Parts: sequence; structure tokens; C-alpha cells
Amino acid sequence: MSKFAIGLDFGTESGRALVVDVATGKVVGSAAHPYADGVIDKHLPGTTITLEPDTALQNPNDYIETLKRAVPEAMKQGGARAEDVIGMGVDFTACTVLPTLADGTPLCNVPQWKTNPHSWVKLWKHHAAQPEADKINEVARARDESWLPIYGGIVSSEWCHSKTLQILNDAPEVYNATDKIVEAGDWIVWQMTGVMKRNACAAGYKGLWQKESGYPNNDFLRALDPRLDRLNEIKLAGEIVAPGTRVGALTEQAAQWMSLRPGIAVAAATIDAHAAALGVGVTEPGRMVLILGTSTCHLILDHHKHLVPGISGVVEDGILPGLFGYEAGQAAVGDIFEWYVEHNLAEPYKHRAKERGISPYQLLEEEAMKLKPGESGLLALDWWNGCRTPLVDANLSGLLIGATLGTRPPDIYRALIEATAFGTQIIIETFEKNGVTVKQLVACGGLAERNKLLMQIYADVTGREFIEAGAGHTSALGAAMFGAYAAGSAAGGYDSLTESAKQMLPAQAVTHKPNLAHHATYQKLFAEYRKLHEHFGRGANNVMKRLRVIRNEM
Amino acid sequence: MSKFAIGLDFGTESGRALVVDVATGKVVGSAAHPYADGVIDKHLPGTTITLEPDTALQNPNDYIETLKRAVPEAMKQGGARAEDVIGMGVDFTACTVLPTLADGTPLCNVPQWKTNPHSWVKLWKHHAAQPEADKINEVARARDESWLPIYGGIVSSEWCHSKTLQILNDAPEVYNATDKIVEAGDWIVWQMTGVMKRNACAAGYKGLWQKESGYPNNDFLRALDPRLDRLNEIKLAGEIVAPGTRVGALTEQAAQWMSLRPGIAVAAATIDAHAAALGVGVTEPGRMVLILGTSTCHLILDHHKHLVPGISGVVEDGILPGLFGYEAGQAAVGDIFEWYVEHNLAEPYKHRAKERGISPYQLLEEEAMKLKPGESGLLALDWWNGCRTPLVDANLSGLLIGATLGTRPPDIYRALIEATAFGTQIIIETFEKNGVTVKQLVACGGLAERNKLLMQIYADVTGREFIEAGAGHTSALGAAMFGAYAAGSAAGGYDSLTESAKQMLPAQAVTHKPNLAHHATYQKLFAEYRKLHEHFGRGANNVMKRLRVIRNEM
Repeated sequence: MSKFAIGLDFGTESGRALVVDVATGKVVGSAAHPYADGVIDKHLPGTTITLEPDTALQNPNDYIETLKRAVPEAMKQGGARAEDVIGMGVDFTACTVLPTLADGTPLCNVPQWKTNPHSWVKLWKHHAAQPEADKINEVARARDESWLPIYGGIVSSEWCHSKTLQILNDAPEVYNATDKIVEAGDWIVWQMTGVMKRNACAAGYKGLWQKESGYPNNDFLRALDPRLDRLNEIKLAGEIVAPGTRVGALTEQAAQWMSLRPGIAVAAATIDAHAAALGVGVTEPGRMVLILGTSTCHLILDHHKHLVPGISGVVEDGILPGLFGYEAGQAAVGDIFEWYVEHNLAEPYKHRAKERGISPYQLLEEEAMKLKPGESGLLALDWWNGCRTPLVDANLSGLLIGATLGTRPPDIYRALIEATAFGTQIIIETFEKNGVTVKQLVACGGLAERNKLLMQIYADVTGREFIEAGAGHTSALGAAMFGAYAAGSAAGGYDSLTESAKQMLPAQAVTHKPNLAHHATYQKLFAEYRKLHEHFGRGANNVMKRLRVIRNEM
Repeated sequence: MSKFAIGLDFGTESGRALVVDVATGKVVGSAAHPYADGVIDKHLPGTTITLEPDTALQNPNDYIETLKRAVPEAMKQGGARAEDVIGMGVDFTACTVLPTLADGTPLCNVPQWKTNPHSWVKLWKHHAAQPEADKINEVARARDESWLPIYGGIVSSEWCHSKTLQILNDAPEVYNATDKIVEAGDWIVWQMTGVMKRNACAAGYKGLWQKESGYPNNDFLRALDPRLDRLNEIKLAGEIVAPGTRVGALTEQAAQWMSLRPGIAVAAATIDAHAAALGVGVTEPGRMVLILGTSTCHLILDHHKHLVPGISGVVEDGILPGLFGYEAGQAAVGDIFEWYVEHNLAEPYKHRAKERGISPYQLLEEEAMKLKPGESGLLALDWWNGCRTPLVDANLSGLLIGATLGTRPPDIYRALIEATAFGTQIIIETFEKNGVTVKQLVACGGLAERNKLLMQIYADVTGREFIEAGAGHTSALGAAMFGAYAAGSAAGGYDSLTESAKQMLPAQAVTHKPNLAHHATYQKLFAEYRKLHEHFGRGANNVMKRLRVIRNEM
């Protein structure tokens, strides 16, 4: 009989269970459960309590419901027997964080606290802690904290310390009632196993944790706010383990929720994006994973720790145990194309696409594919949402140069795609200049599946093979691979993640090879891109920032 | 009884007659005659003789037909009596030029030559003489000709010498059979009066003629092509007079064509754009006329001759007798807005405009008017068709900076209008830096009538009043003013053009006064515009030119 691993993928609007054949990687069942309360950003559920702007919460009970509903459905779909499930893995959005009691009870389930928004889960895209992030950055910069450059010199409002400090500032009574502050990924594993361990991925990329030095130390915390004293020892306490590490076995109760058997190995959680690296089979240095979506997340492994400017973080054990995981990013990619098509695409193109029964994206892709590199005469800087890596500057903005009266929408669309490819090339160069080799690109994410033109342009611009991993639900597959690894070979799983990925990776990868003639032209265009990047990005002309200032004065 | 002057306006597709009351400026009749052969750019009329690309010809008989049809119709419309017409003026597109026999017979009316395209009128937008223009520029630069800087350092393919040299190169037999090469404006006055005089406007702005030094000298001509020897003394011979100068009286035959009386004073012709300066009442220094259309032509008068870099020309007597007339230009203005609306405006805007029964331009104007200066965060360089004044560089291209995911079409539309206003401000500064004062702006052209937002933005950007002269057919009105001046006070006209314009100018001018708060913001934005203008326009980063080179290699 086949053995199965289950990957659980907890997203923004829903959670998914993927039942995967451990021997072949075949997905036999897949079911999603939309969260009843979804993203909570107007009122606390069932109340008239209104939320501050930029608030984004979740209800942890929705995660438990996902276990109860999605897992049995996916099992049923695959005709899988409970006794053949050997391991489970979890990937989760992050930093998605909640305050709990010592036994794991979410504070929002405690009657006393449930009407206080700060007792609920703060979702990754909760952006109300910007003042706290500003304060953290100010204090860290003033103290020249050694961990700051590891995170590109800037702490995000989305991260754990910003959210924690917001609870303290806005609801000190909730903060005081909190025993643990836990990533939701770790919390769900805790609920499944009865064991609380923290994953190095979320702790490292979102919690400023480093394997050698731990969290930012108590001196820093006290400088930030004396009430944060001993945060590390108390509310953030807990063993930190690499993603995929066996945390424990499924409890009776959790097994009941899912109609599974108790005792199944459960792996430490990981961040959804980071699970995709394993999900596309990347377990060694040299192959950069691009998670192409509204923005792009770049992940790469290395045996050593290098300081790379402007990356989102480097974390030992952060992606896979035993390696340093690097994360970089572009702040807008698919968002730029959507901006263009939704808000700026000329009427005749929308009309023609409709007539032909295709999406305007497809039509533009067809038309833009007819153009040769450089033929449009256009060049863009892809900073529609600022620049993440390497400049870490949200006040930079988009630029289009080379427009003439003959410029048409496919020219612009192609130039926007090319700009995002140049942005990735800058990131690759930044890594390589600082000791991290990038030999090949591996894509996942919706954009990669939909946009072949983009894939080819990235290959042509970077001069590197770009592999389209092909499978849907890559993160959930990665989580299942972690589950098979947590189970180990004795239970029918694997003793290494390399083996796990090798066996469970679907075979249908598509490789886009660089066209050398196109690459030669793109090298010329990239030289121009880099010149503009330096000029507008590094202070020679801060016009973008001044335009922002003038705009804000209006 | 009222006395009338007739303004004849010869355009690209049709000619118009305007019958104007000399005492009040009231237009009593207006009639257009569409040229039967229009713009000839495919075949010679009535033949299968195909024309080279970029060829644009006209049939001079269409001009005579305009006299025969438009004048009587406009007279009839106004109920004007032939005996009350005291003067006529002509404005014409330029350089629109034809080869004739010594008696004025167009070569294309001579059976021997009519099948040769080079015997026909070369219309202003005939662009097939680019190789000849290149040669002229090369030789002039090598010889460091003193007249070259007067024309911004570059001779256009549209101008008289380029077109003349093309006849010589491509049809030397036509060149040899030619007695006179004549601007069509001068030719029609010749047909009306029997007197051939050339107008200083077309000779000066399109024929490289300067009052002090005449045409480029014979040494230059021989260096260009030995066969051009004595061009000035023979084919270009003829007295050159300021526009409005009385050339002669209407002949019996011409009077018959138009059902007018012989003896009516006929003024020397002028270029259509330049007639508009008088047509909006500008007869003194300090007031810059903007003829706002697909491109913008800037005209200003001064008592002295200054060398202003990158202008299209400075010509003594070129606009009005006794003054130096300056012409500058922006290569694309209305064309940029049309490019945006026709090819790049998003579907919902087109749709909403249609629903409301207004043009998409009106809708965008409404929406863009709601924005404050600087609010969009955008800034553009208006070089969609290169930069005429002051950089004289066709290889520059459009730039848009400051785009974010929140950028919407009204933001872009407003930024494009602002960019053209900044371009005009650069021209104003260029004039003032070189001794030509610009106190006030006066608009004419279709764009000024249609786009109030543009008018206000120009006032706010330049910090100067912008007067919308208001009347339609401004050039034809200017021509009629010249006609009243040519007639003189003894015949019921005027002895000065100032008087002519004062009396005949319609009263309904609208003044857009600068909003000082907006001007303050625009000064900040203009400082940014100038910085980008200098950076990309003057060699610090020639990316626009390199993109053009790469494009042309494709």
C-alpha cells in the first residue's frame, strides 16, 4: 500500500490540505477550507467593535476548523486510509502571530479578552504597527545593533517585534495577560502535538532571531521599552528548531479532529513562501527560487553566512536545516502588471481580448512576444512600490523612459516585464558580489504558470536557465515533504530532505533556456537600467523622494 | 457703409476666405474650399505615377480654385458688396514651395513636366528631402556658416533649400527648366497682383534668409553642389518685403475670379502660424504667442537681434515690419495628449465618457482638474517627439517618473500637460537668459479653446497671465488685418499694424491668471523638471539616444 504525507498550507483567506503519495509525489487529494472570519479588518466578529485603519486580524479557531474540514475531505478525495498517513507538515503565512496563555489557549478565546482586538491573531498584512517599527529602527540604528544589517537595515511593521510592541503600547493589559507570543504556524503544530516548539524560519525572518546570538538582547529590549524586559525569557521562550524537524506526534484529540490516527509525526512549521523552496526541489546552494506573485520573493541557500546588502534576511536553518537561507525581494512584480492592465490598458485591447475570449494579459503577452529585445525603445525602473532589495527604500517610484508617439501598450507591457527582470538581475549581482553564487533560477507562483513570456525574458536577461517547477500548491507540497522527512524512513518516509524532495517532486518541470542573442541585447539594456538604478536610487538625484515629499504636502 | 478686408488662409487640406469688417473686426463671412487634390502622397492626380515614401505634394490650381469659390461664398454669406472690400491678406503653410516659369506658370501645368512629381508643389510636410537636409547641415557645420546658429544649428528637411536640392538631385531636368522657386504664399499673391515679391517671413524662417546678409552665399551653395551656382541671383531672385507690405493691386483677371473689383490692395503673404501673432493682437515685444496644436509654435517680438540657442529662427521683419521676430517650438504637445487618449487610455474612462456623451479629453480634464499641483507625485519630460527648443534633438524621448500602484489616468494626463508647460517655461527662460523678455502669454490654436485646464496650468507654471484670444480662424483674421494695413487709411484701412490689430481684434479674450500657491508648488516641480532636462538632454546620461540606437539595430 502507498504511504501518504499531508501538507497543510495556511494562507490569507483559507487553509488547504494536500494528501501526497510519499513514494511518487502524486497529489491524491487536495481540499481548501475558506476561513469563516477571513481577514478581519472592519469589526471584531459578531460585535460592533470597529478596528483601527491598517488592522488585519484572524481568528485562530478558523485554523482548527481547517484541520477538521480540509483534511478529511482531502483524504476522502484521494481514497487514502488513515493508517497510511505517516507524517504531516505545516506552512503558514508569517509573521502571523497571537498571544496565548501558557497552555496555548488564544487570548481571544478567553472571555475577558475577546473584545479587545489585541487579543486576536495579527495577520502578516496587519500594518498598524508602523509607529512601533519606526521606533524599533530608530533605537536599533542608534545602538548600532549587529543584527540590523542582517535584515537589510530595516525592520518591517509586519514583523513580530513591531506587532508585539503594538500590543504593549495599545493594550498593556493584554500584553500583561499574555504568557506566550507565538507564530500561528507554531501554534497550530502545538495544537496538533501538544508540544510548543518554534520554527527557525519564522523566528529568523520575522522575529530577528539568529542561531548564534538568539533574539535581540534584553538591553535592546529595555532601551526600546523598559516593559519589554525579559521578553525573550518569558513570552518568546521556547526551543527553536529548523523547519521539518519532528516536533512531536499527533495527539488523540487532534487525530479525532481530522479522522486520522494519533502518533503521526508532525514537522515544525515553516513560512509558506519558504516552504516553496523545498516544494520545487531546491535543497542545495546555487539555485535561486523565485516566488513570483504580486511581489517576488527570492530564496537561495548557501553553506556560509555572508552579509548581503538590502536582503530581507539571512537565517541559519531558516529554509532548510544545516544551511544558511537567504531571502531577498522585489516589492512589486505582478502588482505592476495588474496595475497596468486594470487601470491603464487602452480600450481596444480590452475589447479585442473580450472578442477572442482570452484575458487581456494573454493578448498583451501574445503581442509583446512579437517584439524583439530593445525594439520598443523603452526602459523602466520597476519601483512602482519602492525597491526592496538592494536599496530598501519605499519612497522610490516607477520610471518609464524612451516613450515616443509610436509607443503602444505591448511595448509598455514588455518594458514592465523586462524592468522586473532587470530588478532580479540586480539582486543576483548583489548576491554574487557578496559571495552567494546563483547558477540557475527556479520559479514558482501563479505568475510563472501563466506568463511564459516573463519566464523567457527572465532567462534572457539573467543569462541563466529558468525552471518552471510546474506543480500547483508548491508550498503545501513542500510542507508534505517536510512531513515525510519528520516521519523518517522507518515509518516509510525519508531521513533527508534531499531524498524527500527528490522522490516527491513532480517530473513535469519546464526549462526556459536563455537565448544568447537576446541576452547580448539585454546586457546593453541592463547596463542602462543599472545606470538609472544607481542615479535615482543612491542619491545622485533624489527626485523620486522629493516628488513624494511634495505630494505629501498637498 | 462698412469696409471689409479679406483674409485668405491656405492650409493643408483646404483654403479659407474670411470677410472682416475693418472698423469692428467682426467676421461677416467665412467659407472654406477643400482642395480637390488635397495632399498628394500616393499617385500624381489622374495618373498611375506612384510617389516615393514621405512625399507630400499639392496642386497649385487648388489655390486658384479657393479664390474662385471661397471668396464669393464668404462675401455672399456676409452680404458684403464688392466695392466695400479695401484690402486682402494671405497666410499660407510654409515651406510650401513650387517651381515656376518666369511668368509664374507652375511647372506642373506645363505638359512636358506635369508627369514629373518634382514639378508639383512640395507641401510643408513633404519629408523626402531628409538626405538633402543632412547634406546641408554637414556642409554648413563644416564651413561654420554664420547663419546656422540663427536657426538652432539645424536645417529641416521641410525647408526651402532641402526641397530645392532634392529637385536638383532627383530631377535635374526639372531644376534646369525652373525659372523661379517660389513659396506658394508668394505665388498666390503673384497670381492676384501680377507682381512677384517674396515675404520675409517664409524667406526668413524657411529659406535661411536674413535681412542683413541675404540667403546663404554662393560659396556655400557651390560647396553644397556646384550646380546650385547663382541660385540666389536666378531662381530665388525677387524683392523680399515684410509681411503686410502692399505688393500690388488686384488684377482684372483675379478680380473676375473672385467677383471682386480690380485695384484692391493685396498684402505680402506670411506663414499661417506667424499670421496668428497679429491675429491675436500681438504687435509689440514682451507678449509671447503660443500656437497650441499638435505641436506648439512660440512667437515673440523684440527690438533687437539676440542669439537664442535652439530656437527655430530669428528674422528681422519676419513677423511684423520693423521688429525681430523669434520662433521657438515644442515638437509635440497636442500630439502627446492624443497619443495618450487614443492609444493608452484605459477602457473605463472611454466607457464613462461615452455614457456621459462627452469626449474622453473632457472627462480627463474634469478629473485632472480635481488634482492639486504635485498631488499625483508624477513628473514627465515632454519629449515624445524629441525636443525642439532649446535642445534641438530629435533623438530624445519621453520620460515619466514617480509612478506608483496608485497612479491613475487623470494623474498621467495632468502630468503630461504639466510637462508641456514646463517645456514652455524652459523656452521662456532660454529667451530671457538671452535678452528677450517674456511678460505675458497669448494663446491661439484649437487646444487653447478646448482645454481650460491646460491654459490654467500654463499660467500657474510660468507665473504669467495666459490670454486666450478666443476667436476662431486667428491666422485668417491676421491676414485680413494685414490686408487692412496694405490698403492704408486713405482707402479706409490703417496706416499701422498696431492700429489695424487694435481695431480689428475681437473683444472676448479670456485671461487665466496664475494662482500664486500653485505657482509656488510648480516652481519646486519645475526645478526637478529642469534637473532631468539637463541630465538627459545635455549628455550626462545619453540613455535616450542609446535606446534609440539599440532599437534601430533590432
